Amino acid sequence: MTRDEALALDAGDPLARFRAGFALPHGLIYLDGNSLGPPPLAVHERLAEVSHNEWGEGLVRSWNSARWIEAPLRVGGKIARLIGAQPHEVTVADSTTVNLFKLAAGALSLKPGRTTILSEAGNFPTDLYALQGLAALLGPGRARLRTVPPEDLVAAIGEDTAAVVLTHVHYKTSRRWDLAAVTAAAHAKGALMIWDLCHSVGAIAVDLNGAGADLAVGCSYKYLNGGPGAPAFLFVAERHQAQIASPLSGWMGHAEPFAFEDGYRPAADIRGQITGTPPILGLAALEAGVDLQLQADPAQVEAKGLALAGLFVRQVEAAAADPALRLTGPRGPTARGLHVSFAHPEGYALVQAMIARGIVGDFRAPDIARFGFSPLFLSYAQVWDAAQALAEVLATRAWDRPEFRARAAVT
Amino acid sequence: MTRDEALALDAGDPLARFRAGFALPHGLIYLDGNSLGPPPLAVHERLAEVSHNEWGEGLVRSWNSARWIEAPLRVGGKIARLIGAQPHEVTVADSTTVNLFKLAAGALSLKPGRTTILSEAGNFPTDLYALQGLAALLGPGRARLRTVPPEDLVAAIGEDTAAVVLTHVHYKTSRRWDLAAVTAAAHAKGALMIWDLCHSVGAIAVDLNGAGADLAVGCSYKYLNGGPGAPAFLFVAERHQAQIASPLSGWMGHAEPFAFEDGYRPAADIRGQITGTPPILGLAALEAGVDLQLQADPAQVEAKGLALAGLFVRQVEAAAADPALRLTGPRGPTARGLHVSFAHPEGYALVQAMIARGIVGDFRAPDIARFGFSPLFLSYAQVWDAAQALAEVLATRAWDRPEFRARAAVT
Repeated sequence: MTRDEALALDAGDPLARFRAGFALPHGLIYLDGNSLGPPPLAVHERLAEVSHNEWGEGLVRSWNSARWIEAPLRVGGKIARLIGAQPHEVTVADSTTVNLFKLAAGALSLKPGRTTILSEAGNFPTDLYALQGLAALLGPGRARLRTVPPEDLVAAIGEDTAAVVLTHVHYKTSRRWDLAAVTAAAHAKGALMIWDLCHSVGAIAVDLNGAGADLAVGCSYKYLNGGPGAPAFLFVAERHQAQIASPLSGWMGHAEPFAFEDGYRPAADIRGQITGTPPILGLAALEAGVDLQLQADPAQVEAKGLALAGLFVRQVEAAAADPALRLTGPRGPTARGLHVSFAHPEGYALVQAMIARGIVGDFRAPDIARFGFSPLFLSYAQVWDAAQALAEVLATRAWDRPEFRARAAVT
Repeated sequence: MTRDEALALDAGDPLARFRAGFALPHGLIYLDGNSLGPPPLAVHERLAEVSHNEWGEGLVRSWNSARWIEAPLRVGGKIARLIGAQPHEVTVADSTTVNLFKLAAGALSLKPGRTTILSEAGNFPTDLYALQGLAALLGPGRARLRTVPPEDLVAAIGEDTAAVVLTHVHYKTSRRWDLAAVTAAAHAKGALMIWDLCHSVGAIAVDLNGAGADLAVGCSYKYLNGGPGAPAFLFVAERHQAQIASPLSGWMGHAEPFAFEDGYRPAADIRGQITGTPPILGLAALEAGVDLQLQADPAQVEAKGLALAGLFVRQVEAAAADPALRLTGPRGPTARGLHVSFAHPEGYALVQAMIARGIVGDFRAPDIARFGFSPLFLSYAQVWDAAQALAEVLATRAWDRPEFRARAAVT
């Protein structure tokens, strides 16, 4: 593809108008929206409104007057529309890690007699850590985490499997699970299905209820552009809500939080999964990101993101002469997410050399240079330029400098 | 006391200069900083800086360049100075509820063979709920929550008590536990002591290490003015850090988060209690609040707050002719916190009638009209005026209107 052809794609891009909703630094090509999305312009205004008016003027009264108390369910209900859920099946709460702990514990309680939680080796670490923590707390007689290579996963679902926990799109390889097929495979063995949507929400069209999914978690600071460390969300299918108990019972999950009773009585709906006082600043920023996302057609979002990722891969592979560079994960558009991971022995330095050229991707140990293709603010021409730059960095070994090898705290 | 005498106290108030650090609505007397503190002026600027520059310009690079990754420990280290802890003994993380769950589970693991967590009946509900949730998850053979009336608490500490969990200053009665004495009583029976500092941090001088405390949690949106739903903090005494495991193991608690290993290896220090990605917007607002608090002498903060509370009680009781009004909790300054709770059959309507007069307190079911005396932004004259207003509302039965009885979602 020529750069003019990329420009022609931009001219016909139905999502091009969304770029004006962001103020990215001039000249920067930001290929890390899959790690931290940039702030939609509306975020700045919204945060000032919350800080000055709602918090500063309304003070504690804003729990009612500014409807802060409804924010977890209100924003959750909006996220629901992005993942094929009903509004009352999703709430914002805590972090992905904490939410997965809650739902995995809940899944065990819904499947008495079953003790295995099954996941894939190499799943995003915090998912595995949360499940390990739960298993260690409960002990081997009540819970264990079993991880298997992805190719063995479906066959490993068995009569003792309480829940299968998978990340829909893998953080490193970008490999995408077939949401409906794996959910059906879990159900066929009597297991529940818990999806982690961190790398798909706002990127890949997700239909949880269409797939019959039971439970799901996800973070909101990637393609939803909710801000650094934005609060996470969780989904509990309506049919499970009255039965599933959160082990992290907190006052906001109580049927009547302001009755201040000594005994916990969980709300019988999705509110039962809320724990502490909701983080209003984080929710406000997140809501601005979700509101913007809701204006885009999910099918167009997925299609453009896959097209950008495909363009990047093709252009890099066509131009790059470095045999050490290797695409990880699948190539087919229905089998992948919106980020592209190239393995390279100097992956870390490669990413730093790109950043020095104003093209921001990230590194994932041990050797992955990762680039994400957020459909709302990237253009085809930017991606074309980024591919050319990567090919040039490889051809000239521009990564081969000590300052590009010096590891930062966060990679 | 006359109003002129109150004004004279303001003239000699060493903390009076702090009022300029807040922009409270004109004419409002805000007696609910114990529920949600107002924003320090610096918060607005800090949030704009984080949103526009760090998030908007720095993007994902700000995890390193703006030192976002250090924020939980940096802000935790500052809070440590307010509670008599070493900087490396405190981190910001999650909510009070989640942190108490983590530390209570940790306490059980530190006391193998002991199964009882002891608390007081009527403790703040989310504390009891978190402990009930943990006990329900572990089952009666491994954990149970026992609650006793406060007067029976010390005697109830026994050979099976793994931990005693108490809120230093009671949210409703304002009764203050003797931190050192109760900690010693727990230790005498081989139990660990977990303090909830929600109503004391930034208000009452706390010396956790002086008291030999083991573990503590607290929220930051009250006297620390950290913002609605601000992230909470937790304390683990240095001597326990290498042994205590968090059941909520997440990637940010891993010894090497960016090694992306499948197996959880907890950080051996306070970082092991961090779970998910830190909430940067919430941390930024909180840090502004903590920075302001650190400029005040804790002894002066406590003394002024107790003086304001005492003034309010005396003036109300001297002026109010309503025999139905009853102070709950202790009167002695060493036995109470900075909020004052009056029981009254029409407590809810009473609070609403005060709010209608521009004096904001809050209601706690079933019958408590609660007023908090944040030392950094309140004046003696404001408190004198508030007491006169309450006496007048009572004398004229101004609360006796239907609109004051209509309950809002958040009370």
